[in-house]
Amino acid sequence: MPKLNATHNPELQSWVASANLPGCDFPIQNLPFAIFRRQASDEQYRGGVAIGDRILDLAALNATHLIDGDAAQALAACCDDSLNQFMAMGQRYWSALRQALSQALSQGSALERALNDCLVAQTEVEYKLPARIGDYTDFYTSIHHATSVGKLFRPDNPLLPNYKWVPIGYHGRSSSIDVSGQTFRRPMGQTKAPDAATPSLGPCKRLDYELEVGIYIGAGNDLGDAIALDDSDAHVFGMCLFNDWSARDIQAWEYQPLGPFLAKNFASTVSPWIVTLEALAPYRTTWSRDADDPQPLDYLESAQNRQSGAFDIQLEALLETKQMREAGQPAHRLSQSNFSHSYWTVAQMVAHHTVNGCNLQPGDFFGSGTQSGPEADEAGSMLELSNGGKQPIPLPNGESRTFLEDGDAIIMRGGCEKPGAARVGFGEVVSRVLPARGQ
Amino acid sequence: MPKLNATHNPELQSWVASANLPGCDFPIQNLPFAIFRRQASDEQYRGGVAIGDRILDLAALNATHLIDGDAAQALAACCDDSLNQFMAMGQRYWSALRQALSQALSQGSALERALNDCLVAQTEVEYKLPARIGDYTDFYTSIHHATSVGKLFRPDNPLLPNYKWVPIGYHGRSSSIDVSGQTFRRPMGQTKAPDAATPSLGPCKRLDYELEVGIYIGAGNDLGDAIALDDSDAHVFGMCLFNDWSARDIQAWEYQPLGPFLAKNFASTVSPWIVTLEALAPYRTTWSRDADDPQPLDYLESAQNRQSGAFDIQLEALLETKQMREAGQPAHRLSQSNFSHSYWTVAQMVAHHTVNGCNLQPGDFFGSGTQSGPEADEAGSMLELSNGGKQPIPLPNGESRTFLEDGDAIIMRGGCEKPGAARVGFGEVVSRVLPARGQ
Repeated sequence: MPKLNATHNPELQSWVASANLPGCDFPIQNLPFAIFRRQASDEQYRGGVAIGDRILDLAALNATHLIDGDAAQALAACCDDSLNQFMAMGQRYWSALRQALSQALSQGSALERALNDCLVAQTEVEYKLPARIGDYTDFYTSIHHATSVGKLFRPDNPLLPNYKWVPIGYHGRSSSIDVSGQTFRRPMGQTKAPDAATPSLGPCKRLDYELEVGIYIGAGNDLGDAIALDDSDAHVFGMCLFNDWSARDIQAWEYQPLGPFLAKNFASTVSPWIVTLEALAPYRTTWSRDADDPQPLDYLESAQNRQSGAFDIQLEALLETKQMREAGQPAHRLSQSNFSHSYWTVAQMVAHHTVNGCNLQPGDFFGSGTQSGPEADEAGSMLELSNGGKQPIPLPNGESRTFLEDGDAIIMRGGCEKPGAARVGFGEVVSRVLPARGQ
Repeated sequence: MPKLNATHNPELQSWVASANLPGCDFPIQNLPFAIFRRQASDEQYRGGVAIGDRILDLAALNATHLIDGDAAQALAACCDDSLNQFMAMGQRYWSALRQALSQALSQGSALERALNDCLVAQTEVEYKLPARIGDYTDFYTSIHHATSVGKLFRPDNPLLPNYKWVPIGYHGRSSSIDVSGQTFRRPMGQTKAPDAATPSLGPCKRLDYELEVGIYIGAGNDLGDAIALDDSDAHVFGMCLFNDWSARDIQAWEYQPLGPFLAKNFASTVSPWIVTLEALAPYRTTWSRDADDPQPLDYLESAQNRQSGAFDIQLEALLETKQMREAGQPAHRLSQSNFSHSYWTVAQMVAHHTVNGCNLQPGDFFGSGTQSGPEADEAGSMLELSNGGKQPIPLPNGESRTFLEDGDAIIMRGGCEKPGAARVGFGEVVSRVLPARGQ
């Protein structure tokens, strides 16, 4: 298992009182990164670290000159309006800054008074995309999702023969990725009903979310070089929540033979906070294959990956309809799942992506693919939950849905929790559907 | 047809004598853009315009302050080490700079002496990627290629039912796109022979090129907005040659259900020069559909697109083997084709890409897809020329190829030529295959 250090000590408390409350997403053991500024201000965006219900303003901290060594260099990079430069610095600097912030925010720290002036309330800020994402790759790592969706798109042939050998992925669109709070117009698109003679253009009728984990690349690799499976941790900066909005009717008509295109590139939403790989170390877990499944090819196989390749991250998706919002009713949980169900690990995604020499760059982004669990109520999309739109999903206020309606918001939350370790939360990602253009 | 102006006058001559030679790719009617610096120097990269066998150094010209108005603003943007800022400025500025450079480089120009100091020989420079490419989309616009390749991958079902309705495209990888001169290692990858029980990892055995036209987006659109078919010219900066390297054996095993991934993202090569849409105006031509083909949906149909949506650009691909190179033999032409065979126009690609609200950004890049013509010897890939590897292609020096071997270089050339108009050439794109990693 990855080495745990003092920053993981579950007994550690912060002088920021809200960080010590039970159930808090951002205790001192987490320390995730975002890019923020005060709402409706003309401040420069800069890096911040979540602690309880506050944000430690890294540009303000940098100006105090209280941090030195590698951590100071890392801190200077975090003053930028994206984390790319910090991501590129690599594990040594990520870890140095984490150690320094953990000490500075601990109860009894001599820096408490100075750092207190660097805190901003999370309720007072706005976020932006934490990295300039060069390339975005979406994987397809849940075998439960692949099988359920495969049944709907290809009843005779749900799980293709390559699935258990190849960590299937495809390139996505970076330009339309935005941070939590994103609203977007229901996409227009070409679709063809099974009984229609010809396709037609109109607003998407089967708009769906996908419950995914997002992965940010830190240090990259040169074109032509591969990243070995057991070296991947040095290249992965951290993870977030990711909603990969999908237009199922557009997808069904367009996706053969070259894959999803307009069905997926109209909007994708990330949570503001990136939880680092180091913060997630206590929640790494074993990865295995069923005995009757093929075992991976050598470049996707190692003892380290078997021992600690998977991540125990609980995930949930909630729906808030316009009616719920207006009536002040709570959002309704559609499903819960866990990233540990993934058929392929993050390390396998990195090793596979680069085995052909493809170069990853700091700030590149992977989607894990929809993380459906083995049970029907653990499905990570409405396509699965409504059985391809055939079974409406009842909502507690009397409404129902097969797919999303205008005004609907999807909220995703995630976090790690277990006895003997501090909670490591992901916060949430919220985004909302607006009516189609011209509607 | 698009309006022609004085910059298109075929009688116009330049005081740069090499620009007036018959067959020159870069006469004064062309004026394409690149990013360059002197070879092996530590100069800043900056914009340049090709004229004959010279480059007009736009940073040097900017320093003279001899150009004013909109053109001066455009020129200032071209001092950057990518053309993104210039691309973002839009048609008014692109056109103003073209007019100013056309006048300044014309025979009799009062600026001859001053501009002569701003010329650099093309043989003395190195190029870099002319834009920071945010997102790269590859289309599939040759129905001849789609049908031939479809026959090989899906003998029962070569052309899918959506092909004649949807300008099929998919997202590609930006990070591995580089400029002419690129060398790259033969990709490693997972493949499965039809008779093998399980897949295995090894060097690609079916390495191929794809003869494409590349298209750079200039001014973008906001997320949620669409670009109407007849407005697309305002958003397209220009075109180049594009080699979309492909690993056919990796592709065959990985591409279902989400499309090509590692088969395409190990290297892609662009020509250094971007020929502007304005320079191509004399070579716009009619676009039509066979009467028994479905006519496009409304958002892909207009009189303007019918009248001048296509481009008459001649394309060719040549192979230079290591043996040819060492013996000083000329490269062998594998095939010739023409972009006017494309089943979909550039305007239709832009309108389709944005119909769902997807946002294009300055510097985004489209591949046209392999531009195979209707005849077998007009095929734009070895997969087609060798009939899926079954018929070796004989070479004049006694060698033969089904797919590419280590040391092989592919050279692509392109240009427009017709009576009553000046030649508008694209230059060339050359790239070469290195042995696989560890081989």
